[in-house]
Amino acid sequence: MTDQPFRIVFAVFNGMTQLDFTGPHQFLSRLPGSETLVASRDGGDVASEGLVFACTRTLADISGCDLICVPGGATATQVALDESFISEVRRLGLGARYVTSVCTGSLILGAAGLLQGRRAACHWAWRHLLPLFGATPDERRVVRDGHIITGGGVTAGIDFALVVLAELGGEALAQTLQLGLEYAPAPPFNSGTPDTAPPEILRAYNRRMAASMTIREKEARLAAARLANLEIAQ
Amino acid sequence: MTDQPFRIVFAVFNGMTQLDFTGPHQFLSRLPGSETLVASRDGGDVASEGLVFACTRTLADISGCDLICVPGGATATQVALDESFISEVRRLGLGARYVTSVCTGSLILGAAGLLQGRRAACHWAWRHLLPLFGATPDERRVVRDGHIITGGGVTAGIDFALVVLAELGGEALAQTLQLGLEYAPAPPFNSGTPDTAPPEILRAYNRRMAASMTIREKEARLAAARLANLEIAQ
Repeated sequence: MTDQPFRIVFAVFNGMTQLDFTGPHQFLSRLPGSETLVASRDGGDVASEGLVFACTRTLADISGCDLICVPGGATATQVALDESFISEVRRLGLGARYVTSVCTGSLILGAAGLLQGRRAACHWAWRHLLPLFGATPDERRVVRDGHIITGGGVTAGIDFALVVLAELGGEALAQTLQLGLEYAPAPPFNSGTPDTAPPEILRAYNRRMAASMTIREKEARLAAARLANLEIAQ
Repeated sequence: MTDQPFRIVFAVFNGMTQLDFTGPHQFLSRLPGSETLVASRDGGDVASEGLVFACTRTLADISGCDLICVPGGATATQVALDESFISEVRRLGLGARYVTSVCTGSLILGAAGLLQGRRAACHWAWRHLLPLFGATPDERRVVRDGHIITGGGVTAGIDFALVVLAELGGEALAQTLQLGLEYAPAPPFNSGTPDTAPPEILRAYNRRMAASMTIREKEARLAAARLANLEIAQ
């Protein structure tokens, strides 16, 4: 018999998109009977787009968890090359009941070898990189494949969190938290996906992304090669 | 001629609901030509539901801003009684081009005397307190009354941010950021407002709120009395 709380770990890093993390944290940290830890490679401060999250724990100090959630961000493919971060995500993910991500966090799960043969969500502009890690891109906003639950880009983390809450605590709990956090979205524009955005907005966005995406793809390929070597070695 | 950036100040406090702040921060901090400052009464660390936001500035040190945004949270009516915080919000608000809030942050704007005769949004469970400060509650998710733009509960801060971005930078900018942050919400349940939540969920929520709401109402009445005295004195 055990009264251990259900342990949720957010694995965070410098340069993450903060809402990938803060959105689901707002919902999941209210799960009754749970404890939510925020951890980074080195512990302490983590910087994200002008915010500094202090007092994060050190990933290596966390013995295990029930659910790991990895946010994304523009630095996701750099983080995929951070062997220390990736090995901790791999260790925690292999022992967790649920392995989850938001946005480009799925590329980090992929680099940790946790998505092979799985369907996964990702930010729409980065989704094509998932197959490098043996995963099948899925354009839905929240994707479940067995014990792996992944959310799409940034704000998808809120829909993702409600799906996870319903799984862990039941629909009534998810609905109660939705009411408390007044989640009845009413976007003033309909520009949230490539399919619905005005074509000129999409074109300009893609043009601006193009240069950095070349670098991101190189990083992702290198991370995938490292993963392949790791698997040959094991 | 001036190249001063458009200055946005988030006035934050211990016990705020972090998503009230982090949601709009994620969007507004991407406004080109702007600077986004996060400030608190004493500067330094601000704690919110398990997170610690470090390196916040001190409100009194900020000479002025173009837009002030005050998030809410369960401690909003306590903050409404914090004379130091309130006087800084009042000072910055009186000098700002835009005065804004998310969730129960409108009660703080109200306590600072910034909402008299104005329509304003608020978290649905707290909205009835707005008239104490001379404001008219409006149940819309984003409410604009002149230079005052207020958002409803928590997640409304994202819809609010898009409205503000369209005002400040135009619709194309708002749509571009919506695409980048993949804001095409798809809640798995329809429980985000008292009108749509299952009746038993709403009843349970209201039951749980009842005890603390008595205290919150007392705090709000006291804050309103102080405001009235301040206005008589001036």
